[in-house]
Amino acid sequence: MMSDSKDLTFSDLQQHIRQMYYEKDVARGVEGTFMWLMEEVGELASALRGDDRENLAEEFADVIAWLTTIANVADIDLNAALTSKYGQGCPGCSKLVCECPDSEKP
Amino acid sequence: MMSDSKDLTFSDLQQHIRQMYYEKDVARGVEGTFMWLMEEVGELASALRGDDRENLAEEFADVIAWLTTIANVADIDLNAALTSKYGQGCPGCSKLVCECPDSEKP
Repeated sequence: MMSDSKDLTFSDLQQHIRQMYYEKDVARGVEGTFMWLMEEVGELASALRGDDRENLAEEFADVIAWLTTIANVADIDLNAALTSKYGQGCPGCSKLVCECPDSEKP
Repeated sequence: MMSDSKDLTFSDLQQHIRQMYYEKDVARGVEGTFMWLMEEVGELASALRGDDRENLAEEFADVIAWLTTIANVADIDLNAALTSKYGQGCPGCSKLVCECPDSEKP
């Protein structure tokens, strides 16, 4: 169970999602699970255009949950992935406040 | 700066992404930022079909980073959103190991 603290970690969430859904996720596979992720992304887009803030928060949570569940099936450690790519500042310019040209990501 | 610990929190990441990108994100707005998220989702789909595991980890990190940056512009607290929706077990069946019918999400 996830704690109710204000410090939810990526490792906590990934483990919690694994406990809840791993068996189903593996049976469904990456491609079937990706379809559900896309549905949630659509719901997020819709919520961003609306004015229901509680629903908007839920849609962000759902997209992250589906991403996490795909990470479980693909055996990717999100904590390690994020720390490696973003832990030292912007991956583009290496600055703590991004100075990449606007024409480039991000 | 994010710590290098194994316990990256959603609050840490959201603050770190805010520091790096908030000024650019707000100038670009939610819709322009969502376009970048979609590009990253496409790259994730491609990576899931390939066999480069380092690239796959990076694409997960990128999708989460772009989601987080949109959450910053939309003023959504990801920690609160996730704890509220998933902190007590599956939102569908309330179980710690999901028992929802397979025809339903998830």
